[in-house]
Order: sequence, then structure tokens, then C-alpha cells
Amino acid sequence: MRSIYLDNNATTRVDPEVVEEMLPFFTDQFGNPSSTHAFGSSASGAVRKARRQLQALIGAEFDYEMAFTSGGTESDNAAILSALEVMPERTEIVTSTVEHPAVLTLCADLEKTRGIRVHRVPVDRLGRLDLDAYKAALSPRVAIVSIMWANNETGTIFPAIELANSAKEVGALFHTDAVQAVGKIPIDLKSTAIDMLSLSGHKLHGPKGIGALYIRRGVPFRSLIKGGHQERGRRAGTENTPGIVGLGKAAELALKFMDDENTRIKSLRDRLEKGVLKRVPYAVVTGDPLERLPNTAYISFHQVEADGMLFLLSRYGIACSSGSACSSRSLEPSHALKAMNYPDSAAHGTIRFSFSRHNSEEDVDRVLEVIPGIVEKLRDMPRYGSPAEERRSGLR
Amino acid sequence: MRSIYLDNNATTRVDPEVVEEMLPFFTDQFGNPSSTHAFGSSASGAVRKARRQLQALIGAEFDYEMAFTSGGTESDNAAILSALEVMPERTEIVTSTVEHPAVLTLCADLEKTRGIRVHRVPVDRLGRLDLDAYKAALSPRVAIVSIMWANNETGTIFPAIELANSAKEVGALFHTDAVQAVGKIPIDLKSTAIDMLSLSGHKLHGPKGIGALYIRRGVPFRSLIKGGHQERGRRAGTENTPGIVGLGKAAELALKFMDDENTRIKSLRDRLEKGVLKRVPYAVVTGDPLERLPNTAYISFHQVEADGMLFLLSRYGIACSSGSACSSRSLEPSHALKAMNYPDSAAHGTIRFSFSRHNSEEDVDRVLEVIPGIVEKLRDMPRYGSPAEERRSGLR
Ligand SMILES: Cc1ncc(COP(=O)(O)O)c(C=O)c1O
Ligand SMILES: Cc1ncc(COP(=O)(O)O)c(C=O)c1O
Repeated sequence: MRSIYLDNNATTRVDPEVVEEMLPFFTDQFGNPSSTHAFGSSASGAVRKARRQLQALIGAEFDYEMAFTSGGTESDNAAILSALEVMPERTEIVTSTVEHPAVLTLCADLEKTRGIRVHRVPVDRLGRLDLDAYKAALSPRVAIVSIMWANNETGTIFPAIELANSAKEVGALFHTDAVQAVGKIPIDLKSTAIDMLSLSGHKLHGPKGIGALYIRRGVPFRSLIKGGHQERGRRAGTENTPGIVGLGKAAELALKFMDDENTRIKSLRDRLEKGVLKRVPYAVVTGDPLERLPNTAYISFHQVEADGMLFLLSRYGIACSSGSACSSRSLEPSHALKAMNYPDSAAHGTIRFSFSRHNSEEDVDRVLEVIPGIVEKLRDMPRYGSPAEERRSGLR
Repeated sequence: MRSIYLDNNATTRVDPEVVEEMLPFFTDQFGNPSSTHAFGSSASGAVRKARRQLQALIGAEFDYEMAFTSGGTESDNAAILSALEVMPERTEIVTSTVEHPAVLTLCADLEKTRGIRVHRVPVDRLGRLDLDAYKAALSPRVAIVSIMWANNETGTIFPAIELANSAKEVGALFHTDAVQAVGKIPIDLKSTAIDMLSLSGHKLHGPKGIGALYIRRGVPFRSLIKGGHQERGRRAGTENTPGIVGLGKAAELALKFMDDENTRIKSLRDRLEKGVLKRVPYAVVTGDPLERLPNTAYISFHQVEADGMLFLLSRYGIACSSGSACSSRSLEPSHALKAMNYPDSAAHGTIRFSFSRHNSEEDVDRVLEVIPGIVEKLRDMPRYGSPAEERRSGLR
């Protein structure tokens, strides 16, 4: 059975070209980039190249604005904690209710252990940020605003550029978790007021365990992980050369494919959504219909348990998810949908299909072929308040 | 020209078997270990296997005592910062003067920004820890002792097991930076009182960007990087599956080769030391002659600048270093030798040769062949106070 991977917001297949580029740095050019001998300098040259590849993808003005980290979570943590250290007189954070746990868990911890005040700006039913509430939360007490560029569950895109402009007005630093945005939508940081941006290799066909934090030139910064002088003192620890090289190559490919592939991916996604809505009654596409990542479909199936659906889909070799991967074992209903005020019953039956350039029209058609039967089957399974019962009692 | 790599304390060549083991996890079993579908579960199975491989290498009692991190520096930081958080009533740290910057830089920062009192236990001329000073620094005010198992520059081994016992007497947590010890000397944690231990993949023929923190069962711990529930809540962020798999395999190989290879490596190292002492006047082997890593030779050449030596060695394809890689660009004299009270002039002329199982007798013989000429040449270069001058003035 051919497997169909539609969980690209959880993680992506590393592009074979990326692996090829990484390989020499394991066994051949394996030196420590900080070493002065030839093994070291070939490694440090490769790191420099990767930095420029990444710079190009996100439109940074200078290559040294990129600091490599171990991934999106570390970058998010590093940005927020640094802001609190460099502006100790400011004791508030502004974020949103739909951030990734990398931001929300940290914020909750800071609230509890350090008495930091955290403003969580709400979203509406379509997942759009409440801009009035955002402005109301801003004040000269705010050290940092950390609001994601695109949501991992619904794909909703926030107006990061405008949000950054407003943050500047009160002198706060602006950080955006762009882990889901980088590689999927064009980003040109130099023309924005964004101070820091987090990204992660494994979301754009790069390797796991590598990410970066963009830190605009001149933005004060204190490193989270302390030790050697690597990354201009912004991130200690021996550089993960193969990972960095892989992220660089992934960035180059993402930029190359940006326009064509994202148009193609969007048409696959739209085909899936339209097909599902046509074939399956009581299904709703969640998130902002206008400002949304081209690759993400988050579809709520009334009166279906997501777990059952994932299980039956997996029997056809189709891999997708009920929401973010980090909470997929917790059986909690979608965090984003809760924030969007969906009732638990709807949140429980929501499936995320997230595409990448490795998907094809056949993948979509196969999903469309099997999904009506799966939903029907699950809805017909007798359980309290199920459509089967409702049907019997004349409700459907 | 064949290149001879003798800088294995800076980083090692990834074993080809390790790379082979990692490869499927980039493009085939690339799932997110937290995902519930088949792509996820094959990845999480691989992570479990690696945890057990690592457990075996360091003799941990339970596999879940291992938390994967991005490397040695992160592990060191996580251990120390956690201890301060879980024991807020204790405000002192005990460490040594010869720790890696991953510990010393962090400690200096904590001293400055949080008023933590740091005791830096000195070493003697052979790099051995002053045990009286150590005991004197211990008190119920100490949250954590962080003392390395083996020194990265001299290879000197500290009595980590006894140090841990003493720390327990005052109720302090005991962490050891074993980045240079793991894979080089046998370690059996379950029979010790060590609470936490840091290790790093790239020092034992595993990949860069992956490491682990051993956290003994029951030891209170708060994660440095906050976010998802990965690693039982002790380290957030999508797991670096290929890196973890690589570290696991590297651990397995290190255990397999532990006895035979380390005996062989030690004989290579001893052959180098003896050969140098025989052929080069005014050379001294630094560090503890008895308790020393089998792979490390740190040799001080009187009246020679290390940089010149490294340069001339590199012309023969020989890569080694003047000390730790992270400070190799700083031109600072060896940090460990300064702590051992070597005069700057001696510290400036010290070269570290660090072996691995990929080295051969030929490598040693080649170094012995070229080194007398190199030293002679450098000593003959006229400069103030040089042996050439001293010779002229009858001092030599
Ligand atoms: C929006 C967002 N932020 C942060 C992260 C964390 O990135 P990483 O898994 O690389 O730590 C993820 C994905 O896991 C994400 O989707
Ligand atoms: C003793 C010691 N501790 C910590 C580290 C840091 O490890 P990493 O480079 O993996 O962060 C190193 C090596 O760089 C080391 O030699």
C-alpha cells in the first residue's frame, strides 16, 4: 500500500538534495568550525554559506543576523527570555491565545515563577487576531510581543508586519514564531520592523534538530545557552555543521520552489477542501478563508471522533493529524479551536491535512475516495448523541 | 598528502556505521516521534532504542533517565539552571577552575546577574582537584556541584564518584560534565551517587547537535527549554530523530570498542609522548600522569608559540590544537594551564594531540618524524627571549 503523508505541519520529509549536501559533513569535512586547522575551516566555510542561504529565504539584510539554534522551540524560548533580560524594567509580555506550546508554556511559567504579566490576545471564530485587544494590551510596560506569523493548526496568517509596527510604538521588542510560515509564504524581513523571528529546519524539508533565530542588527540580545563564543556569542555549543548545511540547502530549495510549488500545493489543498465539503455532510473548513497558509486544511467533521478517523485513514496508509503533533498523544481537543470558541464536540472531530511539495493530485483523490465512507461509518457507530441516534429520533 | 586528524577532543569523525543508521530517518522514517500515525511510531521506536543504547554505555539504571538535548553545552546549562530552580533556598554553586566554558561562562553570569555565589575549586600543577578546598566549599547552602569527569585540555580525570558522595553529605545535587569521559572510560552510573551527567554525541563519533542529560530517577528537574511534552517534559522541541539514532549507535560502538580500542589508543598516545620527550628537548607532558584519559596528550614546548607549531604541522596535513576548540580563535593561552599555574610563556606553547579509534601507529610516527624539525625551526626564529638568543648568550 502506498502511503500518503499529509502531516507536513508536524514535520516534513528531508529533501534528498538536502541529505546529499549534508553527507560530507559527517565523515569527511567533520571538523569543529571553531578549529583553526583545515578540518575546521572547511566546516566554518560551509556554515557561512548556509547562513547566506537562510538570509536569502527570509530577506534579512545581513547574514550575521541569523543565529543557528536547535529548532523552533529553542528559538522561541531564546527570543522571549532575552527580551526580559535586556529590558528588566519592563515586566509584561503580549502574545496570542493560539501560540505554539513553545511560547505559551514558557509564558505560563514566567507568569508563575517570575510574576511576569502575560497578555494573551484572543482570536475570533475564524482564528483572526483581535486587533483592538492587541492594541489595548500594548504599553511601555511590555518588554516583548511574541505573536506567530502563521498558526500550525488552522494555517491562519497573522499580520505580523503591522503587529510589529504597533509594538515599536510602545518601544517593545517584536518576535514572531514563523516556524510554519518560513518556506510557505514570501518573507522579506529587511522591509519590516520585526526584531526577532524563529524558524525550524524540519518544517521545510530540512533536518530536525536545527533551527534559527533571526536577530535584527542592533537588537540587544542575551543568549539562552551560555558557553563558548559560537554564533557571535548568541548561542553557545559546537555548531551542528551537517544540520546547518542541511537547513541552508532546504532554505535554498524553499526559495526556488516558493512561487510555483506553493501555487500547486494550494490547488491541491483547495481540491481537498472542496471535495470534502461536496462529499461529506456536516463538514466545516476552519480558519481564515482569506489569510491562510497555502498548504493547510483543518476540517471539522461534526459528530466524529478525530481519533477514530485517524485510525481508519491510517488503514489506507494516509497519515494526517488531529492538531499539533506535540499534543497529539494527550487526546486534548485542539487548542486553537478552543481559542476560536468552537464547542468541544466540534474540536474533537477536526482533522488537519497539511501538504508539501512532495504531495500529488493522486494523494488528494485517494483521500477524497475513502473519506466519505470513513465518516459515514464513524457516524453510524451507535454512541450517545451520535448522528445515528439523532437520525433515529428524527433529528437528521 | 594524507591528513592526520589528532584533534578528537574538539570533535570526531562520525563513524560510517553511525551515518548509515541515521540515513533512513531523514527521508524514509522521517515522522515526528510525537505523531500517532505510522510515520510517528517508527520514529518513536527508534528513539526508544537509542535511549537504551545510551543507557548501556553509561550504566544508567533506567532508560528514561536519559533526556536528549542539542549537545554538551545545553546539557550543562540545563543541569545547573534546573538545580537553582528546584532548590531556590540554596544560592551557591561549587565548580572547578578548569571547567569548560559551558559551565564557567554560565556560572560567571549567574554570579553577576543573580547574585549566586560560585566556589571555583582550584587544581594543582598536575591538574588534580584540591580535595580539601572542595570539601571546604561544600555546605547546605550549595544547590549544585558541577565538576567535570575529565578535562578537555589535559585529559585529567577527576574522582567524580567520590566528589558526588561528598556533595550528597550536604544535600547538594551533583552534576558532572562527562562530555570528554563518556566513550573513553568505563562509566557505571547506577553504582554512584551522581544525579546528573552531561554528554555530547560529536565527541564519540556520533553526530553534532545531539547530546544528552542523564537525570537520575527521582531527582527534581525543571526543563531549560519549555514547550511541548517531549522527553517526559524535560526537554521541549521536536525530537532530532536522526541525531538521536546516531548518538545511540555511537554509544553502542563506543561500548563495543571500549576495552580493546582504548588500550590501543592509549598505546598510541604513550608512543607519541615518549617519542616527543625523547626527540625534543624542553618538552613537558602536562596533566595527571596517573589519572588521565587514554587518548589525550597535552604537551608544552618551551619557547615555542603554539600558533606557529599548528601552522607548520598543518603543512604536513596534521591537525591538532592548542587547547579547547571554542577558544582556539581567541589566541588566549590555555585556560586549564593557567589554572594549573603554568606561566603564560609555557601555556602559549602547548599543543593538544587527541586520538580516536580512527588513528594508527603511522599517524604517530609521522608526527614524531616532523615535530623535532618544526620545534627546532621555531626556536631558531629570532625573537626576544627566544632559545636562539639564549643559546647565543650561553643560556642553552
Ligand atoms: C508554530 C510552531 N512553533 C514552534 C514549533 C516548534 O518547533 P520545533 O519542533 O522545531 O522545536 C512548531 C512545531 O513543532 C510550530 O508549529
Ligand atoms: C568538557 C566539555 N564540556 C562541554 C563541551 C560542550 O559540548 P558541545 O560542544 O556538544 O556543546 C565540550 C566540548 O565542546 C567539552 O569538551
